Amino acid sequence: MPVISLNEIEIRKPLPGFKGQFIHTDKITIAFFEIEQGAELPEHSHHHEQISTIIEGRFELNLGGETIIQEPGKVTVIPSNIPHSGKALTFCKVIDVFCPVREDYKK
Amino acid sequence: MPVISLNEIEIRKPLPGFKGQFIHTDKITIAFFEIEQGAELPEHSHHHEQISTIIEGRFELNLGGETIIQEPGKVTVIPSNIPHSGKALTFCKVIDVFCPVREDYKK
Repeated sequence: MPVISLNEIEIRKPLPGFKGQFIHTDKITIAFFEIEQGAELPEHSHHHEQISTIIEGRFELNLGGETIIQEPGKVTVIPSNIPHSGKALTFCKVIDVFCPVREDYKK
Repeated sequence: MPVISLNEIEIRKPLPGFKGQFIHTDKITIAFFEIEQGAELPEHSHHHEQISTIIEGRFELNLGGETIIQEPGKVTVIPSNIPHSGKALTFCKVIDVFCPVREDYKK
């Protein structure tokens, strides 16, 4: 810190088809994901707020019973504790921001 | 919410050469900036943590006496209350995340 080169930080594979790089500050986790076409996000929820920004590709998100197509120019706010799941319709690059810090992503 | 189209939210001009769009959740502000080449960020500080991700372009950031060239693939963490200033070396697209919410950007 303060400048972090993404090519120098660990690439994690939290789910099949998902590659993620994580930066944790005191209050925020920012995650840079590359997701293979067809990769699936099983339904889950967490107490963290999440803001999801698609840089490239299309991702179908099911959020609290609603289906959303995430694509560049759209930003999705996932409130605390709302179940969500999804599927990459194409290869995707996604930036997810969480507050508070995702302690589970530090393990 | 939960899906926000960036082409439907207000474009603000907080500084000469800076166009910003802001989304505020309970805990986070996310800002999408387009910055003209040569535009300057005067020295300032704030108690909010900030994570700055450059999507396009090069931005020279002076952070606590250190000069950083922000460019794609690099992520800058600006801790609370550290003075910072800068200049867009080229046209830039930047995503800045703040915690807590930037109440001053709601006005």
